[in-house]
Amino acid sequence: MPLDLPQTFRHHVFCCAQQRPPGHPRGSCAAKGAHPLWQRLDQKIQGKGLTDVGMAMTGCLGFCSAGPLMVVYPEGIWYRPETPEDIDEIVESHLVGDTPVERLVMVLTR
Amino acid sequence: MPLDLPQTFRHHVFCCAQQRPPGHPRGSCAAKGAHPLWQRLDQKIQGKGLTDVGMAMTGCLGFCSAGPLMVVYPEGIWYRPETPEDIDEIVESHLVGDTPVERLVMVLTR
Repeated sequence: MPLDLPQTFRHHVFCCAQQRPPGHPRGSCAAKGAHPLWQRLDQKIQGKGLTDVGMAMTGCLGFCSAGPLMVVYPEGIWYRPETPEDIDEIVESHLVGDTPVERLVMVLTR
Repeated sequence: MPLDLPQTFRHHVFCCAQQRPPGHPRGSCAAKGAHPLWQRLDQKIQGKGLTDVGMAMTGCLGFCSAGPLMVVYPEGIWYRPETPEDIDEIVESHLVGDTPVERLVMVLTR
């Protein structure tokens, strides 16, 4: 890439908040319990004053069967957290300490 | 970073679709005409068969005065397109050709 700009965020986290109705064949991250996890993630990022970490909610990220899904850029690491403790570990290890949580990483293929 | 995983997408585009009511002090990307631009972007990505380019809608990306905003990862390049032609140029130059459109780049500081 010819542009070498400073990154706006050290880590930028995108969290799928897609909601589909119960029984929908694709399911959705929200139907799999995503929202309380993202709420905790937001609280942790705010609470720790991680001003160089961005977080945004998204529509469908395209891998519904693998949810709840979040992806951290610029490193492009996808996670499927399942518990509040998973969120806490992602925050401490990855967002604070720059060490991804390998046990929660999803390797997604298109 | 200790993990060196293959990227799921060659480019992953996140487009702010935040809507706030008319007159809201922060404004919003949707209030600035974002939706037709993102619709065109989606059509172009689909139409060209760019299966290695991901696209997702997001909530607020945090720089409302600079909208309509989109960001392309993993390179972390932010754009403020204003016209359909801007979208076409981003698709052709950046998403297809890997050359960012410098005239549309936003350098955002937190």
